[in-house]
Amino acid sequence: MNIDIFGYIAAILTTAAFLPQLIKTLKTKKADDVSSTTLIMFIIGVLSWIIYGYEISSRPILIANLITLILNLLILVSKIYFSKTLSPQ
Amino acid sequence: MNIDIFGYIAAILTTAAFLPQLIKTLKTKKADDVSSTTLIMFIIGVLSWIIYGYEISSRPILIANLITLILNLLILVSKIYFSKTLSPQ
Repeated sequence: MNIDIFGYIAAILTTAAFLPQLIKTLKTKKADDVSSTTLIMFIIGVLSWIIYGYEISSRPILIANLITLILNLLILVSKIYFSKTLSPQ
Repeated sequence: MNIDIFGYIAAILTTAAFLPQLIKTLKTKKADDVSSTTLIMFIIGVLSWIIYGYEISSRPILIANLITLILNLLILVSKIYFSKTLSPQ
């Protein structure tokens, strides 16, 4: 069995995993229980993977992390938007 | 500048990022807004990274993903525990 298959499964799952979180946030219009610190640290980490992937010319690292970046940015923006819209100070 | 530094920053941030989520969940005793599907997909993905890291003998992939696995398992278990404890059917 080709070992690379685990790498591909891993990359697809750890990238696509954030889609259900985005859909849930958009549906329920809240993400209060989702940690902003986690999202921000994760986004900076993913940006670092993108720089690393670009510099070592790794297209898989680049593509997987670009998608992960977009999904997590959308989750963060949705979380902030809904928290401001639905609970005005 | 050594390019590997971005790889290390990336690995540390995308691993440590889940600690604030775990702390938040334990403090607030709820994680209703956190998607179970996301957690389960992510955990299976991280398990695949561990198998891949083991097979290609990559200690960084192995260590980073073992920590990520433990943190995400604890988040999932906490989420399930608090949802059952605090909202009995």
